[in-house]
Amino acid sequence: MSYNLLKGKKGIIFGALNDMSIAWKVAERAAEEGATITLSNTPMALRMGQTDELAKKLNAEVIPADATSVEDLQQVFTRSMEVLGGPVDFVLHSIGMSPNVRKKRTYDDLDYNFLEKTLDVSAISFHKMLQTAKKLDAIAEYGSVVALSYVAAQRTFFGYNDMADAKSLLESIARSFGYIYGREKNVRINTISQSPTPTTAGNGVKGMDHLMDFANKMSPLGNATADECADYCVMMFSDLTRKVTMQNLYHDGGFSSMGMSLRAMNQYSKSLEEYTDENGHIIYG
Amino acid sequence: MSYNLLKGKKGIIFGALNDMSIAWKVAERAAEEGATITLSNTPMALRMGQTDELAKKLNAEVIPADATSVEDLQQVFTRSMEVLGGPVDFVLHSIGMSPNVRKKRTYDDLDYNFLEKTLDVSAISFHKMLQTAKKLDAIAEYGSVVALSYVAAQRTFFGYNDMADAKSLLESIARSFGYIYGREKNVRINTISQSPTPTTAGNGVKGMDHLMDFANKMSPLGNATADECADYCVMMFSDLTRKVTMQNLYHDGGFSSMGMSLRAMNQYSKSLEEYTDENGHIIYG
Amino acid sequence: MSYNLLKGKKGIIFGALNDMSIAWKVAERAAEEGATITLSNTPMALRMGQTDELAKKLNAEVIPADATSVEDLQQVFTRSMEVLGGPVDFVLHSIGMSPNVRKKRTYDDLDYNFLEKTLDVSAISFHKMLQTAKKLDAIAEYGSVVALSYVAAQRTFFGYNDMADAKSLLESIARSFGYIYGREKNVRINTISQSPTPTTAGNGVKGMDHLMDFANKMSPLGNATADECADYCVMMFSDLTRKVTMQNLYHDGGFSSMGMSLRAMNQYSKSLEEYTDENGHIIYG
Amino acid sequence: MSYNLLKGKKGIIFGALNDMSIAWKVAERAAEEGATITLSNTPMALRMGQTDELAKKLNAEVIPADATSVEDLQQVFTRSMEVLGGPVDFVLHSIGMSPNVRKKRTYDDLDYNFLEKTLDVSAISFHKMLQTAKKLDAIAEYGSVVALSYVAAQRTFFGYNDMADAKSLLESIARSFGYIYGREKNVRINTISQSPTPTTAGNGVKGMDHLMDFANKMSPLGNATADECADYCVMMFSDLTRKVTMQNLYHDGGFSSMGMSLRAMNQYSKSLEEYTDENGHIIYG
Repeated sequence: MSYNLLKGKKGIIFGALNDMSIAWKVAERAAEEGATITLSNTPMALRMGQTDELAKKLNAEVIPADATSVEDLQQVFTRSMEVLGGPVDFVLHSIGMSPNVRKKRTYDDLDYNFLEKTLDVSAISFHKMLQTAKKLDAIAEYGSVVALSYVAAQRTFFGYNDMADAKSLLESIARSFGYIYGREKNVRINTISQSPTPTTAGNGVKGMDHLMDFANKMSPLGNATADECADYCVMMFSDLTRKVTMQNLYHDGGFSSMGMSLRAMNQYSKSLEEYTDENGHIIYG
Repeated sequence: MSYNLLKGKKGIIFGALNDMSIAWKVAERAAEEGATITLSNTPMALRMGQTDELAKKLNAEVIPADATSVEDLQQVFTRSMEVLGGPVDFVLHSIGMSPNVRKKRTYDDLDYNFLEKTLDVSAISFHKMLQTAKKLDAIAEYGSVVALSYVAAQRTFFGYNDMADAKSLLESIARSFGYIYGREKNVRINTISQSPTPTTAGNGVKGMDHLMDFANKMSPLGNATADECADYCVMMFSDLTRKVTMQNLYHDGGFSSMGMSLRAMNQYSKSLEEYTDENGHIIYG
Repeated sequence: MSYNLLKGKKGIIFGALNDMSIAWKVAERAAEEGATITLSNTPMALRMGQTDELAKKLNAEVIPADATSVEDLQQVFTRSMEVLGGPVDFVLHSIGMSPNVRKKRTYDDLDYNFLEKTLDVSAISFHKMLQTAKKLDAIAEYGSVVALSYVAAQRTFFGYNDMADAKSLLESIARSFGYIYGREKNVRINTISQSPTPTTAGNGVKGMDHLMDFANKMSPLGNATADECADYCVMMFSDLTRKVTMQNLYHDGGFSSMGMSLRAMNQYSKSLEEYTDENGHIIYG
Repeated sequence: MSYNLLKGKKGIIFGALNDMSIAWKVAERAAEEGATITLSNTPMALRMGQTDELAKKLNAEVIPADATSVEDLQQVFTRSMEVLGGPVDFVLHSIGMSPNVRKKRTYDDLDYNFLEKTLDVSAISFHKMLQTAKKLDAIAEYGSVVALSYVAAQRTFFGYNDMADAKSLLESIARSFGYIYGREKNVRINTISQSPTPTTAGNGVKGMDHLMDFANKMSPLGNATADECADYCVMMFSDLTRKVTMQNLYHDGGFSSMGMSLRAMNQYSKSLEEYTDENGHIIYG
């Protein structure tokens, strides 16, 4: 399945670790749609993951970078322009990590150095990326930038901890910089708020499977997969979405607009009676 | 408990049926806070409910009115001004009804005459009330108008049916008319989006108790009661909130800002393992 | 420019009047992308507009219908399935009209029969369309439905009058029905909230050109055109957005996320001093 | 004007600099309503401002603290409990500062050490305050915490720079901690999103007066003043709002729900014709 939506376009994908990563799928789909890309991830992630394998498959160069380092980001954009032959048309930011979550610090017992790290890695890196790109004029006119987010930016999910605050900050940066980059270069900047997705990053979160079950039963279309998210990213990189900017776009099977679904309520009240009418028929409605 | 917050103020309370009604509680609290009021409800509701009892207790006149009838509303405002001695300072709209819900028409099998009725009673009545009041100059400068709403205006709850659409329309009318009435008379118009509350009106909805349990477990402060809602209405009628207008104010123990709480998740995944760490301690977070 | 995004897909476009209509552009783009379609509009609009010309060009059948008539809608879906050879994959609802606006009734002097008409034509028609389609099983699994909306559903614009309430209701219907149609048939339902667009419908609104100037200067990417909106609709009809539902998607150059831009502020405060620093340089920021 | 709304209550007010400060007004109003309080501000602010004068007037102790220092915050809460005789019932956070704004670094040329400072002072200080208070059990059951915010958290205003991101982060922290503190101690946490207000802090922002003119003309009730904000804070501290939490409450004369007002549009299009009908009458609508 290819529509040549990104034919002739150049891009940079940050955050592809292994074939469970959303960024991995986006890289594959972007290539399928005709784009040439570079990949970037931290040296640590490059050692731990399979990014090289993806790079080989897609004939893409890997440029190691700590996304919290402006120098590293300069290197990514400069090298990408050399390799790809000019400014890029799209960028994916799929980066997030909380030492507080990893170390099981609860939200009312945060380590503030960890919090600074969470925000720097998961949100401020996005500003650094955009500011660096703009200074280098590394994103072409009418380019498109997407960062991945989560509905915890708007509503509190127990256990998501300081990542919720990081996602709020990330989405704010998308708006703030979207205004600047839009008015000056017609570059659009959006976040995609994706269903909970079984990636390596998410695996550590306890009770993640229950939350995913809940989200799935709440969402009329079920949870969106990483593959489907890649499709949506491709659309946002294509020329068909040129006037969409500063938005947070829910890609979640409808979860964000649900208050309570029949399926989730039935699971919730399992041991109790069904939602049936006098004749024992389930009441939809 | 009285602060004299509404001392010398005059108001009209629409929709007090019996002592489970939020409007009933608002009437009582408004009187406690020093207001003099009139009460209005449909002739049918006046027969079925105990409004007269409330009227006696508060020494308030009852003015029967079908809130979908402009003529009846004119009568309510005209008579209220006579009885109370001038334009009113506050109005409560606590009116809603869906024949589709009553007749168990599901949302994909609506009767369109019923839908028209739902919207007319539950939402357009609010516009009629405001337009009638404005034409009669029946609300004093810096007056305050509140209508009761529900979060279904923003998110879909199975079974809430066309009442969700009615609440969306209601909230839009609050904004649209809030602009007009604000700029011309400094009258503010807001909606209060209340927790699910066990009133006579809500009683008919099947599975309502399960939904209330869910809402209660999701909300860090638990569901807000009718009494607490009355307190909030008093605050919105007082002079301490004069610059708040065109807002939908959630009075719901935090429900609207929750994605998932620990308590609700534990109920949801009851038959499964607890959220505990290696030592068996529940992980908050 | 064609990507074959809609190759083999069937659709119905409601509301194409002339080549200024967004629906007209959507019809053209859908055909370019490989879809076969039918067109529908009111008998009056068919007489006044150039729909027949478009039909000829696209080799599409025109099915006259008053979208407030369930019978007419049944005819549209039934006939479309005959002509196109089965259930449709996408539907566009681009219908709106306010007799109150036309007759210059201000929002605090609405005619309630007109209001009923505004809501019936501009919002309830969308429910009728969806309910009719569902009963006839006229939309294929994983189909996509889009209705056009405007940011007045969230914020008040003077002069937009009861159309604001109609758009709020429309967006609520999209959510409410999106839940039902999603869980049962994987059909997704969204609204696109478009920049103010110079169509024949909008032409009547006085001061429309000033508002468009303001929106354009506020939006970092400028106002979105009808052509660009058609691109976005095509994207929403394609298989690349299958998990997006119950959303209101702003297609507005960033307007909805702006509070104040430098360009708009400079126009606003024209006769006053520029936003410059001590050295006379304009301060961006 | 006193209702004794805070009779017997204890509180801490952070951020009162001089009699233009919102925090100053809140301190005065809280005292009028019967509360006993302590005041806190940075040593620098205490030297520059008139906090001591306020303290004398209200018979309140001043506790110097850098709100980014957990140690200092511990001191504020510990000392306040000593002075006031137990845990406090309310806290106001009115703290914000951006070195990037002060040093005229534009948003696409941020200094990242400055950004870290902006976030630490304006947002993370709120988390530190709450975490410190919770560990010391320094806020009584059913206590109320308010932080002041601005609509730039949702929409971009040119020149507001990284303060927009700080406000987004602040509001997210209010939600995240509101969940925890609510479920465990029934403490509610909200932000009040206030009209632009002529304080000493805001004075430095160039073009601030034009923006305030715009906001004032957009808002049907005009901009909310610092005095009115103090009234609203008192309400949020009182027992009448016990079930409101995790909310961002607009106190802005309606600005947040406006898209365009007649007054603002007339100013915007000054040199052009008026919005009049054929007979020269202004068209309201």
